[in-house]
Amino acid sequence: MAQLQNDVFLRALLRQPTPYTPIWIMRQAGRYLPEYNKTRSQAGSFLSLCKNPDLATEVTLQPLARFNLDAAILFSDILTIPDAMGLGLYFADGEGPKFERPLREEKQIQLLSAIEPEDQLKYVTDAVRSIKSALADRLPLIGFSGSPFTLACYMIEGKGGTDFHRVKKMAYERPDLFNKILQVTSASVIAYLNAQISAGADAVMIFDTWGGSLTSKAFKQFSQNNLTQICSSLTREVDGTVIPRVVFTKGGGQWLESLAETGADALGLDWSTDIATARSRVGDRVGLQGNMDPAILLTNPDVIQKEVGEILMGFGEGSGHVFNLGHGVSQFTPPENVLALVEAVHDQSPRYHR
Amino acid sequence: MAQLQNDVFLRALLRQPTPYTPIWIMRQAGRYLPEYNKTRSQAGSFLSLCKNPDLATEVTLQPLARFNLDAAILFSDILTIPDAMGLGLYFADGEGPKFERPLREEKQIQLLSAIEPEDQLKYVTDAVRSIKSALADRLPLIGFSGSPFTLACYMIEGKGGTDFHRVKKMAYERPDLFNKILQVTSASVIAYLNAQISAGADAVMIFDTWGGSLTSKAFKQFSQNNLTQICSSLTREVDGTVIPRVVFTKGGGQWLESLAETGADALGLDWSTDIATARSRVGDRVGLQGNMDPAILLTNPDVIQKEVGEILMGFGEGSGHVFNLGHGVSQFTPPENVLALVEAVHDQSPRYHR
Repeated sequence: MAQLQNDVFLRALLRQPTPYTPIWIMRQAGRYLPEYNKTRSQAGSFLSLCKNPDLATEVTLQPLARFNLDAAILFSDILTIPDAMGLGLYFADGEGPKFERPLREEKQIQLLSAIEPEDQLKYVTDAVRSIKSALADRLPLIGFSGSPFTLACYMIEGKGGTDFHRVKKMAYERPDLFNKILQVTSASVIAYLNAQISAGADAVMIFDTWGGSLTSKAFKQFSQNNLTQICSSLTREVDGTVIPRVVFTKGGGQWLESLAETGADALGLDWSTDIATARSRVGDRVGLQGNMDPAILLTNPDVIQKEVGEILMGFGEGSGHVFNLGHGVSQFTPPENVLALVEAVHDQSPRYHR
Repeated sequence: MAQLQNDVFLRALLRQPTPYTPIWIMRQAGRYLPEYNKTRSQAGSFLSLCKNPDLATEVTLQPLARFNLDAAILFSDILTIPDAMGLGLYFADGEGPKFERPLREEKQIQLLSAIEPEDQLKYVTDAVRSIKSALADRLPLIGFSGSPFTLACYMIEGKGGTDFHRVKKMAYERPDLFNKILQVTSASVIAYLNAQISAGADAVMIFDTWGGSLTSKAFKQFSQNNLTQICSSLTREVDGTVIPRVVFTKGGGQWLESLAETGADALGLDWSTDIATARSRVGDRVGLQGNMDPAILLTNPDVIQKEVGEILMGFGEGSGHVFNLGHGVSQFTPPENVLALVEAVHDQSPRYHR
């Protein structure tokens, strides 16, 4: 593995000294960029874009050409695994992801089996290899997956963002069935992330988008256990270089102490958690990634610079902070505000790293 | 004011000794009850039901006829205030509440003025008087309002449940305008809740449904300040009897210590917060109301009884707990499960009140 020209992001995740606070942005290759929309319309759809390694490479690199970001992230979707399992991922216009064949019958669940990524999701590992080649060791590449609980939510409900009543009814009444889904998806996530690491990913992130919909107790039982299992099964080093893991449970601010026990090197924070409080709670055990409210990017550079200053001051001195939003960037974000954000983080952060 | 036959709910809110843990259920008069659906279809719509004091009385009493609940809650909507301000509340089929004329122009905002409840929302105070008369002092009646921030969310976005980007853009870029909306709605909420108290409400609850969408800092600035202002301006006693106030910020589990400073007698908890942890954080200062996941009511009496046992044990011995769900009851709940819940709370709780 060649030395990366900029590994500030990886070192910050591992709480090693860095000259400044690195930044990347969730959904940085997305609809707020005109060049992304152009490529996407050439591809025909979001899914075609994900499934075409050349185009996925093109859009992964687009934000890096505009902004001085400290990491690239694989362009893909969190729901590739259930799609590979045959549930039929699709995107209705103006709505989130959906499945054509959600899990409604016990028989469907008993027939589920873990995916083999280099076979069923080769378009993803091909994209990782292609992006790594295009990056030419300039920046680290982040691989990612949805968490088993979050995947199970979509697989059972057929869509996201609901009250997850079907999911919870199954979890509470038929924990045997629900655990079967979680076990198969956990095994798949492990194989999938390890395949991304083998293909060249320098760090991996697990998006537990819906974990925050659970009670504290159910979260430990139905999401955290699987996150821990995954972290303990991921490739730790490649050629002597540690592959850091980031776990992000949206709405999980109350459970940071527990999440710090999963084996994650760093935790993603949504914007509802005060970063100073978060660091005092877990900052001696894990790095923190976040956590500006994406709505700030809809304002103007003055407001952005002030907010960046408050988040950097909130985290305080020393390493262990990767700047990011608390959720994906909005499609209505003016790209010049992203430029202002990246510059503000790079301009203001060196004073905290002396 | 005549003595209530059952004031266990009011005493629990004030952390006074009670023989058992009282229970009521958010949205207890709702679509899971066939008799409610019948009355609602007679009324023609949800809003017609709210605006007809006789029918509002009828549906308020329906769950009390079925279940041994410890409080009644006024049947109404949290958005009556902006409707009275002229924004045009309506309900599209299968969707949440919406406004025909959301606040989009500065001029609209400058023209807003506080409502006069006995004039513009007389149908609500009439309903309170009618329900009080029908209850004949058997049980306490809860009055309620949306919080100023939550009302502002609907007023600006025109609907709920979004990412509130319009709201936040205004809050961050034009705090003067946003505060104007908050001030007018705060003054309205104070007048509205005091009018409900004058009409006979024995306790009041403020629903801060969307406060959890804010950052910690923005929550204090744009929601908590107004909650504090409201609590300090509410009628404290009627004929020597204290009128307790409950503040419920959904998604506000990280801010309980701050919320305990608002002047609320009790805090509502959603299901994401562990009630044992919540009590250890704030239980010597306020009562707690909650917090079973509504999805538990979709299962069966065995699961319900077990979950009730865990929540009661979580709160532990002594007074200060009102059992409730962590959010409104689902329309898909079998009424017999609500019966099992109410019985489980009354059966299992006396051991914690010796």
